[in-house]
Amino acid sequence: MSNDLYDVIRRRRDVRAQFTGGQISDEVLGRVLGAAHAAPSVGLSQPWDFILVRDLTTRQAFYEHVQRERATFAATLDGDAARRFERIKIDGVLESSLSVVVTYDPSRGGPAVLGRHAIADAGLYSVCLAIQNLWLAATAEDLGVGWVSFYREEFLRGLMNMPDVVRPIAWLCLGPVTHLEEVPDLERHGWRHRTPLRDAVHHERW
Amino acid sequence: MSNDLYDVIRRRRDVRAQFTGGQISDEVLGRVLGAAHAAPSVGLSQPWDFILVRDLTTRQAFYEHVQRERATFAATLDGDAARRFERIKIDGVLESSLSVVVTYDPSRGGPAVLGRHAIADAGLYSVCLAIQNLWLAATAEDLGVGWVSFYREEFLRGLMNMPDVVRPIAWLCLGPVTHLEEVPDLERHGWRHRTPLRDAVHHERW
Repeated sequence: MSNDLYDVIRRRRDVRAQFTGGQISDEVLGRVLGAAHAAPSVGLSQPWDFILVRDLTTRQAFYEHVQRERATFAATLDGDAARRFERIKIDGVLESSLSVVVTYDPSRGGPAVLGRHAIADAGLYSVCLAIQNLWLAATAEDLGVGWVSFYREEFLRGLMNMPDVVRPIAWLCLGPVTHLEEVPDLERHGWRHRTPLRDAVHHERW
Repeated sequence: MSNDLYDVIRRRRDVRAQFTGGQISDEVLGRVLGAAHAAPSVGLSQPWDFILVRDLTTRQAFYEHVQRERATFAATLDGDAARRFERIKIDGVLESSLSVVVTYDPSRGGPAVLGRHAIADAGLYSVCLAIQNLWLAATAEDLGVGWVSFYREEFLRGLMNMPDVVRPIAWLCLGPVTHLEEVPDLERHGWRHRTPLRDAVHHERW
């Protein structure tokens, strides 16, 4: 397959159910993390870190926490939405061979981070730019990425033994996949449909 | 030039001083915004909007605000840092032919956004993923992008007539450029240097 940027953007999916459990070579993983690390960052602060989690005991503990959070969310849904949600798998924590916890350290590049004095969240934004680079690079390498966001930050901070100042931003499942779906899971399962671009574009003012 | 993903990631720069002032065709702009709109989003909420700002009066008003914020930041720096900062251009608001204001609407996809019940900022993260897609697509099209973050959100909300619930995330200058620098501006001007990837990688725990 082509690694033309637009083609990669089109192929990229949030993967939950298609992980094979296969391993990633160090060379490929280096390219994927290198892409993340090449992202832009406010004041060149590079405030991200990547914790590579392979240990099954750790992944099992996180998985159980996610299951509890899934139940918490499910309890807020009415009948129709609850039935649709039941069909949607929300993580591949145990099936993928590797998880990558991406974090944000606001103290990086301090004390005066160029471009962050007026917008406290600008460093947080940088971490997300790195995640998207990682996601696209993984797609180019025919790997799947699944972003799990059914967790409490405090739980993950404890599990990873992170300093209080550092904030977990994402738990990403990463690994070889049988295939990438053409249509996002949430759309396939009738949760929501994608809107056309024109709905999101404004001219001169809101 | 190649539009291989890794090559685009390597070429991408935060552009301030290299805008030619040339125009972008509707076809190219459609591809760039389409790339942004194809980003992943929590619960498929697609919580971003793109305001295309061409009007010079609006850009002039924003530019003057940025200059004031630049002075505010400069006043916090000591002698050495102040001298380095003085050499660094921080925006291309007037030189680029187009600015794109990217916003976040937390009400999009509600009331129950799948994946956001435990992490309130997850929607904010989605908007940043879209911005990185936009940035890479612009690079593939040989356009420059400059993210301006020297502004107060309240000022920009007012200037754009945005509803209170919507939050401005980025002001992006977008346009043709003479070239993209090999080395980031902040590194060229001695503000900060990029760190090696190995410094950002941890195994199993922090």
